[in-house]
Amino acid sequence: MVKMVALYRRPADVQAFLAHYEQVHLPLVRQMPGLVRLEVSRLFHPRGGSANPFLLTEMYFDTRESLFAAMDSEAGRKSGEDLRAFAGDLVQIYFADVEGEVL
Amino acid sequence: MVKMVALYRRPADVQAFLAHYEQVHLPLVRQMPGLVRLEVSRLFHPRGGSANPFLLTEMYFDTRESLFAAMDSEAGRKSGEDLRAFAGDLVQIYFADVEGEVL
Repeated sequence: MVKMVALYRRPADVQAFLAHYEQVHLPLVRQMPGLVRLEVSRLFHPRGGSANPFLLTEMYFDTRESLFAAMDSEAGRKSGEDLRAFAGDLVQIYFADVEGEVL
Repeated sequence: MVKMVALYRRPADVQAFLAHYEQVHLPLVRQMPGLVRLEVSRLFHPRGGSANPFLLTEMYFDTRESLFAAMDSEAGRKSGEDLRAFAGDLVQIYFADVEGEVL
């Protein structure tokens, strides 16, 4: 399993950012071919207060090849364009091979 | 579901770091009470070359309370001490509420 990880710093207007993220960006992400799991995490500070980064998206694919094909697909290109437009200065993208263990 | 996330920058001696991580640190992490899933991801650069950060550990618990209890447990304290000793200057820790979707 592999994943693409997007880690977002806190925007000035969290409410407007999340509205776009949930109503426009995630629907594009969900259309990426080969996506087998989508995990959205909302960061919190263990002693209260605002976490920064504040949002983490993890997109799982079976293989590196299927991840790269998804990025090259129409939904992948639209998703990437949207990401650069609404969060280009806030997001870090990582790619990873995943080893999961259920205990 | 909640998780604790550890994102590691690349150390000078990757081989020695991973030996400690796999042989000492992960066995301590696995002893934390209430840990329901452990995901270890090795970051890669999509066009080749060395990724930095290079390693991501995600520790899943059922609730925030069980996560905090795990951190307060003997295994949690040992794991935290070990982390500070071998990776204190390389690791970022995040806490998050998780929404997962299997597509």
